[in-house]
Amino acid sequence: MTQNTAIIGLGSMGYGIAASVLRAGHAAYGFDVAPALAARFLAQGGRPGALGGVAPSLHAVVVVVLNAAQTESVLFGADGVVPQLAKGAVVIACATVPPAFVRDMAARCGEYGVLYLDAPISGGSVKAAAGKLSVMASGTPQAFAAAAPVLSACAQTVFELGETAGAGSAMKAVNQMLAGVHIAAMAEALTFGMTQGVAPDKFVEVISKCAGTSWMLENRAPHIVAGDYTPQSSVNIWPKDLGIVLDIAREAAFDAPITTAALQQFLAAVGHGLGAEDDAAVAKVYASRAGLNLPEKI
Amino acid sequence: MTQNTAIIGLGSMGYGIAASVLRAGHAAYGFDVAPALAARFLAQGGRPGALGGVAPSLHAVVVVVLNAAQTESVLFGADGVVPQLAKGAVVIACATVPPAFVRDMAARCGEYGVLYLDAPISGGSVKAAAGKLSVMASGTPQAFAAAAPVLSACAQTVFELGETAGAGSAMKAVNQMLAGVHIAAMAEALTFGMTQGVAPDKFVEVISKCAGTSWMLENRAPHIVAGDYTPQSSVNIWPKDLGIVLDIAREAAFDAPITTAALQQFLAAVGHGLGAEDDAAVAKVYASRAGLNLPEKI
Repeated sequence: MTQNTAIIGLGSMGYGIAASVLRAGHAAYGFDVAPALAARFLAQGGRPGALGGVAPSLHAVVVVVLNAAQTESVLFGADGVVPQLAKGAVVIACATVPPAFVRDMAARCGEYGVLYLDAPISGGSVKAAAGKLSVMASGTPQAFAAAAPVLSACAQTVFELGETAGAGSAMKAVNQMLAGVHIAAMAEALTFGMTQGVAPDKFVEVISKCAGTSWMLENRAPHIVAGDYTPQSSVNIWPKDLGIVLDIAREAAFDAPITTAALQQFLAAVGHGLGAEDDAAVAKVYASRAGLNLPEKI
Repeated sequence: MTQNTAIIGLGSMGYGIAASVLRAGHAAYGFDVAPALAARFLAQGGRPGALGGVAPSLHAVVVVVLNAAQTESVLFGADGVVPQLAKGAVVIACATVPPAFVRDMAARCGEYGVLYLDAPISGGSVKAAAGKLSVMASGTPQAFAAAAPVLSACAQTVFELGETAGAGSAMKAVNQMLAGVHIAAMAEALTFGMTQGVAPDKFVEVISKCAGTSWMLENRAPHIVAGDYTPQSSVNIWPKDLGIVLDIAREAAFDAPITTAALQQFLAAVGHGLGAEDDAAVAKVYASRAGLNLPEKI
């Protein structure tokens, strides 16, 4: 059945989701605070219309904004969409946010008869564009059923993590914790190796086949070898995501010393003016501290 | 050609190497400071004889001791083997040691006409017993040639990292840095997840398929899920190996904050009396700090 779907937030992830929903034959309305992004989606086949006008006809609203504050604003702010939705419509919330926030949003949606799927996403902009995201989802069976057409359009893997909204966001926080730590640890080890005569290309060749490897090492270390910091996922993501992780940890009185050390490296990278570069650029912080020259782009 | 080979150090790794050399049809002499280990190897087919007596006939000496001090003692101490070897014999040195130490050992062996292969090993005791180790090797072509029969008996993969002894140990240090960090980071993330309602088995199931995964996570996290800390690789390895890594880093004026944080967790684990348990037991340090109950052994 054709779904009337709104995608709110057309950044690299949201745009890919919107394009995937469109490609699957659904009616897709794209919204963004940046008019150029909304216009671009309109030109590619998005439906025209103001959110207020189309809201009552929507089956699903996919919220792909930066954080909890933006999610709350979109859902319940001055022109918040939830009070305008029909009963039984589903909010698919994709931002990385604290589990406690999710439980609050789900309860408030419930007051309007609106379903809520806690659905943080993983995979990066390339997989988003291809409709091959991973989704760490939790929510009621009704929410899963209502979200199914959109999920099948934009996801390759949907982890069903239970009926309690928040479980998806908890797993996402765990994943981001490890992903961020592994990127910074890769940078630490690659530059440490350089001080001992291990060339970055040899590092990738050998370590990717050894017990020291990680998904992030295999994905990001080649960017350093190539000297190419075109952002596939930017440094700026990590102060945000590891910040959320450590906010959650502090709330739980959980001491996370390795994550804390990793966050500091990304903060230093932002301080070095590298925020918009690919997150592998955290290696430049280490190189700068140790007086090393990373490979140049050929 | 049958090689006369001595294996010095019959711990879990050395014993596996000795058994593999024997299985390949070579004459193998096993030595250890613990008489029971040497006797056990003798009973399994090892050749009898004192090191001083057999040294002049040896083609290869494999040194599988704990650290640089033990390696130096075996090679050049009071009854050091190197001065007793024939010219052209090869020392295959497997301990994790600093690259600068390797260069010194190789030079001193050279004074006796003895070849030196820098050959730190990776893979754990199970692969050692099966003759399927990974070796990060560096040395002269002559050293590689002389070591070839022993390497083919005990290794599945030999990374040839150049003619300069020390390059193998540098890569090994890089690998241990990442391996140790990834074990501790896995423990940090698994226990953090528990504070947010993510069960350890669900953690393994989901994260092992996501961007947050690592070789160590996939290998060690199941031990925590099973509550089984039978040591496949013990906590005690990590204060030693990360200590060596950070000694090398300090010498190079290299700041390694994530590795430092990881080492602290393993030190705390030793302090908790967990040194002889499987290294996944570092999770017990986090669980203790956060008041969590890890899965019990069924």
